[in-house]
Amino acid sequence: MKRDERNSAEGILYTDFYQFTMAHVYFRLGMHERPAQFDHFFRTYPDYGEHKAGYCINAGLELLLDWMEEARFDTASLEHLRSQTGQQGTRMFPDDFLRWLEQSGGFAGVDLAAIPEGRVVHPFVPITVARGPLAMVQLLESPLLNFLNYSILVATKAARIRQSGPGVLIDFGMRRAQERGANAGARAALIGGADFTSNTGVSCVLGYPPKGTHAHSLVEACLGAGMSELDAFRAYADVYPDDCILLVDTVDTLESGVPNAIRVFEELRKKGHEPLGIRLDSGDLAYLSIRAARAMDRAGFPNAKIVLSNQLDELVILQIHTQIREEASRYGVDPDALIERFVYGVGTRLIASKGDAALDGVYKLVAIESDGAWKPTLKISESAAKVLNPGRKSVWRVYDTRDTAVADLIGLEDEELYDVDPLVLHHPVEPNTQRTLVHGEVSRLEPLLVAVLDAGRRVRARPSLEDMRTFRRSDVEHLDAGVRRIVNPHRYHVSLTPRLRRLKDQLVKSFRGTS
Amino acid sequence: MKRDERNSAEGILYTDFYQFTMAHVYFRLGMHERPAQFDHFFRTYPDYGEHKAGYCINAGLELLLDWMEEARFDTASLEHLRSQTGQQGTRMFPDDFLRWLEQSGGFAGVDLAAIPEGRVVHPFVPITVARGPLAMVQLLESPLLNFLNYSILVATKAARIRQSGPGVLIDFGMRRAQERGANAGARAALIGGADFTSNTGVSCVLGYPPKGTHAHSLVEACLGAGMSELDAFRAYADVYPDDCILLVDTVDTLESGVPNAIRVFEELRKKGHEPLGIRLDSGDLAYLSIRAARAMDRAGFPNAKIVLSNQLDELVILQIHTQIREEASRYGVDPDALIERFVYGVGTRLIASKGDAALDGVYKLVAIESDGAWKPTLKISESAAKVLNPGRKSVWRVYDTRDTAVADLIGLEDEELYDVDPLVLHHPVEPNTQRTLVHGEVSRLEPLLVAVLDAGRRVRARPSLEDMRTFRRSDVEHLDAGVRRIVNPHRYHVSLTPRLRRLKDQLVKSFRGTS
Repeated sequence: MKRDERNSAEGILYTDFYQFTMAHVYFRLGMHERPAQFDHFFRTYPDYGEHKAGYCINAGLELLLDWMEEARFDTASLEHLRSQTGQQGTRMFPDDFLRWLEQSGGFAGVDLAAIPEGRVVHPFVPITVARGPLAMVQLLESPLLNFLNYSILVATKAARIRQSGPGVLIDFGMRRAQERGANAGARAALIGGADFTSNTGVSCVLGYPPKGTHAHSLVEACLGAGMSELDAFRAYADVYPDDCILLVDTVDTLESGVPNAIRVFEELRKKGHEPLGIRLDSGDLAYLSIRAARAMDRAGFPNAKIVLSNQLDELVILQIHTQIREEASRYGVDPDALIERFVYGVGTRLIASKGDAALDGVYKLVAIESDGAWKPTLKISESAAKVLNPGRKSVWRVYDTRDTAVADLIGLEDEELYDVDPLVLHHPVEPNTQRTLVHGEVSRLEPLLVAVLDAGRRVRARPSLEDMRTFRRSDVEHLDAGVRRIVNPHRYHVSLTPRLRRLKDQLVKSFRGTS
Repeated sequence: MKRDERNSAEGILYTDFYQFTMAHVYFRLGMHERPAQFDHFFRTYPDYGEHKAGYCINAGLELLLDWMEEARFDTASLEHLRSQTGQQGTRMFPDDFLRWLEQSGGFAGVDLAAIPEGRVVHPFVPITVARGPLAMVQLLESPLLNFLNYSILVATKAARIRQSGPGVLIDFGMRRAQERGANAGARAALIGGADFTSNTGVSCVLGYPPKGTHAHSLVEACLGAGMSELDAFRAYADVYPDDCILLVDTVDTLESGVPNAIRVFEELRKKGHEPLGIRLDSGDLAYLSIRAARAMDRAGFPNAKIVLSNQLDELVILQIHTQIREEASRYGVDPDALIERFVYGVGTRLIASKGDAALDGVYKLVAIESDGAWKPTLKISESAAKVLNPGRKSVWRVYDTRDTAVADLIGLEDEELYDVDPLVLHHPVEPNTQRTLVHGEVSRLEPLLVAVLDAGRRVRARPSLEDMRTFRRSDVEHLDAGVRRIVNPHRYHVSLTPRLRRLKDQLVKSFRGTS
């Protein structure tokens, strides 16, 4: 697709078609401008198979806000809608509806509250709350989910990989991403815990230095041109004497790559430059890194980094550490010192969140104005976990006396919890599970949702990526170690206040009556 | 990111950073304009866990070509590169290199041959072949893989889902895609087998009608405004009398949704309109569809469609069919007639290729000009499957006397196979596995690669999406039924000619000597 086609496909029409047919029905019912509220939340943490997340990292909001600012019903998009016809050839969208879209169909009437990017988030908690004319907040569903679900998924994965080792983490995933989603993925990885990305364009735009080493093709090309691996390494070192990382596995890691790298490192040092290190991209990374470390130690390069890549994720990294702790001393290598030398280049499994490639985030109507008052709405389901938490709500994070976050509490918008003692926490799904916290057990209550848009206008400064990274670091630190676990994490408590619990029960009862 | 930031991030800098550092090293070595060839291929079919693909569908090429036409070293991108500094604060890219990029750093010197989009493709077969100045074909690696890997992945998944049932297939995946990758995903789904997508923007740009029904929120909003599910259905039917598909599971599918839908259908028919059908989005889809079909049959709507959605993929669809074949007649419903009524809305598992979220496609240097002649290059590996097939090659598809494709044969560029009898097919990895086809067993040999770019210019008309869909249909029909299987497919033969096999063996031997 050409740029103008992409701009067309990524504008106001970047939504599922049923949003337009529903908006049209609302228009006919005279309900299209009726104030309504949708909540965005997810129901389950990513589950990667052998392991699952104990928390998520929020991300993607600024991408949504930028889209909302740019998306509008211009001539081209209205023409596309005008040309849609049904089974009988009649137009799907008549002129009066299109006129309304053209005149009033923007996001100028939409309020948005959200939990900031970088913060830890949990299931059922409203992460993004959109309020505004029914037709427009309806239309917002698909782009909102598109921008937020994927960013949360990748930020979460990055946070987990970040936790698995102390080394620098670089996103290498562009080539395995869903086309231009690579840029959102790199951004989310940076929020969640990556230190850098190899993706040049998005790095430059976001103000981070892009990072990389070299590929096998550099060595191959030199060999093809009659040179040797050593010549290729020397050429790289000549050009980048102070940034020299050499990929040592094109020919034979231990027989050729590592000795050649060391030779080049020695030459560099003679010229007054300190080499950065080597990269291993295949084979038994634990064994090869031990052997490479020993060779570099002996040659006087105990600080040279070892960049690891090739299908890494948090579990593989932990396994490499375990193997090194078991085996390194046999080779006279200090395991902890070796682990400190690692840099991780993580590609596919980060950007594609391998094992669980989609977050189940949803966006549900929870309240609508009726006769001048907000009325909570509900979708019930045979599955209790899919019954909505209705109405306009507030969310607090509850910290205990260690200043550890112990629960997220969802209540009604007008609830004041500061003087409530004890705090009763109801399980969001199980009717008979509850927990009580007395005043002395709670050190603070933190409201999580902040106002972002008021009638379509930003009401807070655009946060920097560094702000988001700071939030993430702080929030992860405030989690209990059990919740932070990479494998078999403890379950974080997300709870309802007694008032919200009662409202939900009443609505379910009356709802079943109205069918 | 704003539009100008996206344009910046999606232009010529949309590549991994090491492509620039390598290009710079090639520049210093005087090799940057030396003709080189890279092959793009994948090594393994997607493996979804319980089931795996027996073939892939090629897709994404036109996205790459469009990118190549638009990407250029403009002032902004050169400025970004100029500002990159290393560990010691020195510039990574000096002026002479940037000047070369500005003056010569486009794709004007690049030739591209490729297997067309929509065609069936198999492991190890070069799908896309780029030839041109080393620095530029090197830089092309990341965008090429980014554009092609994901499209092949989704086109393949769509072809498998397409095979699982006769009904109309609609992509519903936008909300679970990797941000703007949703558009590439919808396009690939259409090539691979989806009939429509719910993604409005990309449908309009590609010239396909977007499709959809309505969401639970329509019913919820009406309930919240004091109306009933029946009122909501009536409102929808009033607006779309000839395109009326009603989502029946907001309140209670069998107690409320289906009877209300039938009532509205009867009203529609009285007004001279034929209802399209209902949609089921939760619960036991086999059981509910049998019960809904029975109710609609009895009410005189035996042709009303049943749209199924909710975590569908090819296996789930097959299971639903099996369950219906076992259970429908007990309810007086003809199972085959019921299956014929289905329309499938497939979201997450299509667009995110759940179970295997990335194709392992790679792009490897296979030949470089040296002293005026092309010289094959190699990357060897401890894993035999990762040893490259070196040199400039041709690819033929071999059809047997039933006109079934029985093998893809990779040979040297200058080989003529038409008169070779018998054809000897060497396994690409196993050294001692081979197969022989005598003349009478082969009905035709079809070259698969076609010239696409000659010195950066398109040398064939841009194919339509319908052309690609026709290729896909025809190629899938020409596969053996065993290869087409959704579960436990037969292994399609990809083979090397004896000459390519010998070249590879010789190179591996001499390569191990040069280390």
